[in-house]
Amino acid sequence: MNNCGERRSLRPGAPSEPNAYNYNYPKRGLFIIINNKNFHPSTGQRCREGTGADAERLEERFQDLGFEVRRYDDATASSMTKIMVEAANYDHSECDCFGCAILSHGIEGRIYATDGMLSLDVLTGPFRGDRCSSLVGKPKLFFVQACRTAPMNHSFDSMSDKSGLSEEYEPALSSIRKVPVEADFLFAYSTVPGHYSWRNNQDGSWFIQALCIVIENYGTKMELVHMLTQVNRIVAYEFESCKDEEFTDKMKMMPCIVSMLTRYVYFRPKKPDIRD
Amino acid sequence: MNNCGERRSLRPGAPSEPNAYNYNYPKRGLFIIINNKNFHPSTGQRCREGTGADAERLEERFQDLGFEVRRYDDATASSMTKIMVEAANYDHSECDCFGCAILSHGIEGRIYATDGMLSLDVLTGPFRGDRCSSLVGKPKLFFVQACRTAPMNHSFDSMSDKSGLSEEYEPALSSIRKVPVEADFLFAYSTVPGHYSWRNNQDGSWFIQALCIVIENYGTKMELVHMLTQVNRIVAYEFESCKDEEFTDKMKMMPCIVSMLTRYVYFRPKKPDIRD
Repeated sequence: MNNCGERRSLRPGAPSEPNAYNYNYPKRGLFIIINNKNFHPSTGQRCREGTGADAERLEERFQDLGFEVRRYDDATASSMTKIMVEAANYDHSECDCFGCAILSHGIEGRIYATDGMLSLDVLTGPFRGDRCSSLVGKPKLFFVQACRTAPMNHSFDSMSDKSGLSEEYEPALSSIRKVPVEADFLFAYSTVPGHYSWRNNQDGSWFIQALCIVIENYGTKMELVHMLTQVNRIVAYEFESCKDEEFTDKMKMMPCIVSMLTRYVYFRPKKPDIRD
Repeated sequence: MNNCGERRSLRPGAPSEPNAYNYNYPKRGLFIIINNKNFHPSTGQRCREGTGADAERLEERFQDLGFEVRRYDDATASSMTKIMVEAANYDHSECDCFGCAILSHGIEGRIYATDGMLSLDVLTGPFRGDRCSSLVGKPKLFFVQACRTAPMNHSFDSMSDKSGLSEEYEPALSSIRKVPVEADFLFAYSTVPGHYSWRNNQDGSWFIQALCIVIENYGTKMELVHMLTQVNRIVAYEFESCKDEEFTDKMKMMPCIVSMLTRYVYFRPKKPDIRD
């Protein structure tokens, strides 16, 4: 797009803000876990054995980081959308940030509820800058453990979108926008587009295992995108599938960090209250 | 995907490799700039005024970082694919990494050559781990200044894919893969999917302006993804479009970092050769 747009800053070259997000609010923030294991037969989706291990580890790790964790198991499409809209409507004024992990089946851009698919945008859209004012300028962190295979492999047309919210969540431009509505989102995907995402029946998914190991070791010391770079390395180098009847080769997996963050994320420990 | 796959590492929790990529090879590496300004009338694409300023700045900045910069102006689809295949076939054994900037019109997933569109995958695919052995384990860095609007807005069906290489570059699984073929890629996009990308007629695009400012200030000191986080902030906060006949609101833009990097990227200065 060609336009006369120019920089507003009078200080070329000098970043005008501190490099790290403000993590000195009274609370760390909400962390939503949607943990889908069992699916309605109409979806054709198998039970996700091992996801309980993922959910438990995530609960521990993000509680350790100071989040108020809310876990939802086996959520339908309508309850998933309700959970996310309610979380977005929460007053985050006293919070550093918002976090969410979605553990389920999926295809590229879509996630399975227990009774059908819904668009990832429907789940994350309520947190956009023009819809969730108490999170403007704060990190909105989404961790997605799900396959991202192409829709055409999944007879997608025959599946109904169960969200019922796609129209309500069409992009709406506010007339005055100081910050792009997509700013400060981070999506940490278990895999690159077009690929399966791997999980162990007992130990949980490769991605969430690696994420929890890295958070346990570096959670309060290392910047989040740098932690996720370590997660990338652990998954890429240290995991591979066994051969089975479906896959005759050992398969590898590559996670994918998508960052619209504008500053660094450090989950520094909060100072405890001191009694007078 | 459910599978018995397990971690191969015997050292749980301890990253098995240094955190930063090896940037101690004799050479920094190739940096390809594809700078498309003028388009064939059949494409319906306007002249990209200001892109020369982008290309010149990028040339300077990446030369300063030690890259061997090769710039190509107004490339056809066949020459773009040839440039990239030849660059991938180059012997990168003595190089730290590979870099590329693509400056053009585009839609989501596709880039305009001067005579038609081609898939971004066609341009980046030759650098995958199974196709470019001398870059395995090394960063492959792509900076993309182009619109990412949805194909349906662009009567896409009527446009021909000019690459002629889509079949040749269909994913091919090597039988033994120690590292996922998608590992160590970084895509720094000027904008999030579904959006226009903005450019000034004289000063060049917002994204490349911000990228070059950050590299000029921090290029040899700061980790690359952290530099790109600063680019995100500068573009998101310090640029906005003017109102014109097409857009009655001032528009903002949000860049997008997509990282499959497995270590940190530091463009540390290379030590000069010393005469005996």
